[in-house]
Amino acid sequence: MEYKIANRIAGVQGSIIRELFKLAADPNMIAFGGGNPSPDTFPTEEIARITAEVLEKNPSSVLQYGLSEGYPPLRETMKKHLAKVEHLSFDKNELFILSGGQQCADLVTKVLVNEGDVVLVEEPSFVGCLNTFRSYGAKLVGIPMQPDGMDLDALEAALRENKNVRLLYIITSFQNPTGFTTSAEKRRKIYELAQKYDICIFEDNPYGELRFAGEHLDPIKALDTDGRVLYAGSFSKTMAPAFRLGFLVFDQALVSRMTVAKQCTDVHSTTLFQYICNEYMTKCDYDGHIEKTRALYRHKCDLMLSEMEKQFAPGVRFNRPEGGLFVMAFLPDGMDSYPFVAEGIKRGVACVPGIAFAADESGTHNGFRMNYSSPADDKIVKGVEILGKLTHEWLSR
Amino acid sequence: MEYKIANRIAGVQGSIIRELFKLAADPNMIAFGGGNPSPDTFPTEEIARITAEVLEKNPSSVLQYGLSEGYPPLRETMKKHLAKVEHLSFDKNELFILSGGQQCADLVTKVLVNEGDVVLVEEPSFVGCLNTFRSYGAKLVGIPMQPDGMDLDALEAALRENKNVRLLYIITSFQNPTGFTTSAEKRRKIYELAQKYDICIFEDNPYGELRFAGEHLDPIKALDTDGRVLYAGSFSKTMAPAFRLGFLVFDQALVSRMTVAKQCTDVHSTTLFQYICNEYMTKCDYDGHIEKTRALYRHKCDLMLSEMEKQFAPGVRFNRPEGGLFVMAFLPDGMDSYPFVAEGIKRGVACVPGIAFAADESGTHNGFRMNYSSPADDKIVKGVEILGKLTHEWLSR
Repeated sequence: MEYKIANRIAGVQGSIIRELFKLAADPNMIAFGGGNPSPDTFPTEEIARITAEVLEKNPSSVLQYGLSEGYPPLRETMKKHLAKVEHLSFDKNELFILSGGQQCADLVTKVLVNEGDVVLVEEPSFVGCLNTFRSYGAKLVGIPMQPDGMDLDALEAALRENKNVRLLYIITSFQNPTGFTTSAEKRRKIYELAQKYDICIFEDNPYGELRFAGEHLDPIKALDTDGRVLYAGSFSKTMAPAFRLGFLVFDQALVSRMTVAKQCTDVHSTTLFQYICNEYMTKCDYDGHIEKTRALYRHKCDLMLSEMEKQFAPGVRFNRPEGGLFVMAFLPDGMDSYPFVAEGIKRGVACVPGIAFAADESGTHNGFRMNYSSPADDKIVKGVEILGKLTHEWLSR
Repeated sequence: MEYKIANRIAGVQGSIIRELFKLAADPNMIAFGGGNPSPDTFPTEEIARITAEVLEKNPSSVLQYGLSEGYPPLRETMKKHLAKVEHLSFDKNELFILSGGQQCADLVTKVLVNEGDVVLVEEPSFVGCLNTFRSYGAKLVGIPMQPDGMDLDALEAALRENKNVRLLYIITSFQNPTGFTTSAEKRRKIYELAQKYDICIFEDNPYGELRFAGEHLDPIKALDTDGRVLYAGSFSKTMAPAFRLGFLVFDQALVSRMTVAKQCTDVHSTTLFQYICNEYMTKCDYDGHIEKTRALYRHKCDLMLSEMEKQFAPGVRFNRPEGGLFVMAFLPDGMDSYPFVAEGIKRGVACVPGIAFAADESGTHNGFRMNYSSPADDKIVKGVEILGKLTHEWLSR
């Protein structure tokens, strides 16, 4: 049979880096290419205890069909938590529990973006969400990233030049893949531009709780008086990725649309894990848990950066992330990182080339993403040593 | 802010029955309107034991990010199981574990249906999937259901008259909402028509394991030599709904498209529950468990039907389901069931009017759906008594 693939999906490439990663599947490979949180951060004992208790006392409460909007006590807990730590207001906002940050992107796009609409994205940006936008037939326009957030001149030019911009996608803190954080100043200006051109912002903050340096910055959603910001977070890095839980904050006017979109997609998210998150956040030492997670990533990030400073050729630039899981290193301007990364994999270290995170995958990119949350300390040292040697060879060719 | 809602979602009504069900939220209401499996069927003890064991021995295997295609051992287990019980072949087919039967519908539509394409559906049919098709901008064309499956003349007429039919949606066994099962003869003919007009079939079989009367019938997928049938099943009625797990069987040629669609949507489904399903199916008495579930529903269905035979006015028709969770009763032809159901709710019994399951929600329908899996036995007796009295009044007006 000749399948007629829907246009929306025919336009999504299988990841450009898939072929590269077949090479990286070697179990001896030093893996800087992934994006997994450290399993040392999972609160396993409490997960086991809470699960055993609820399955003993009230099993059908976590096994029967649940509500599309999410488990009500967790929704309330998260509202209080986000009001406290991110200064979000719930006077006019609502919060749903969804199946991970990825589904937040999926439903926001489903509800707000028509085929052919433009979504503005940081360039580079998280490929998982870029592919979500593509899978609804959106046209992506990339706005170059700078260490303090996207280039505002380029942003305004894109807003002026594209008539059907529907959404701006931004990861405000410890961005994936760059590790950059948008400054408070740029957050304000980006919101003002969204007002001026009357577009919505999809603010993705999966790493928000993982700040291990610098000062807290309120998300753009905290500035939002119009209801034009949809704010997503995730339990993947604070509890466990396989819970497949995230949360979306949005104006109450969108509640019925979001409910319908969720019902059409997977009915509801798993109740047991929502119950565990709520019990853990209300009855265990959640703050202490997050502090321990931050300390671990602070240590791992410091280790990777200090080794990079020692080992990398001076022509390779990188910034110091203040949180999250990633740092991006940049080869000199105009140099393509793809063959560099391919050679690194041959020598036993896997990174991700920047082109994988581009709005336009047909170009080249000089950055490569390195993950420090997942590899063991000795692997971080060894991997940076190998890459460092390669940078010296590569830049002196 | 004035939101511009995407066309695809603007076209999906919030459920026509939502207003009706606000009335039905009274906790004293006898609930024939839901679709929940009986919590007595959940294998709670084994779920608790298997969970405790894996969280003790290998926690990160079920808490870390998993594969988009599903947990490999469960995929293999399900292939063997479906080869045995449904006579499916996996020579050219693949099986993914997805987030419930609902997500199977979501991804099939995402991959195969363009905006404006026609999806043929049984009329009435499961509103959750009808809304999924609508949420991708598909045009629905209803094919009237008969007790042995859809009207084949109407099906062929619809195939002839609509040039851009992409998909036929069918629940072959114990259909929701009618409880009807498509005969072996009609299964063959429907497949032949799909070949003749070169369309795909999305065969949904969430109740397949719940046959409590009559003889097994192979699904249409077992006849599929061309790879034109995509076959979905669910763990919601065999294990627990809140696992949010289902499975999709489809031709290997679609693997990369389905993988991308899953990645864009929610990355992967929960690993712990996939692990539990696999352990339960391979190491516990799964066959005995299913036999007990069937016995329970056989009893509840028999009870509801025998009470309906005693209590309902002779002008109300209904058939004897051979499995599943639902029976549909039909008022005399041309009579609208909506005001009947509304009056039933006033008297303390909630059903779902047939119009909620229609391709065209603007018409009327004479059927109403009753669920027997969830209410307690005494509620079944009492609820049918109340409805029975109402049928006598209603038909003699």
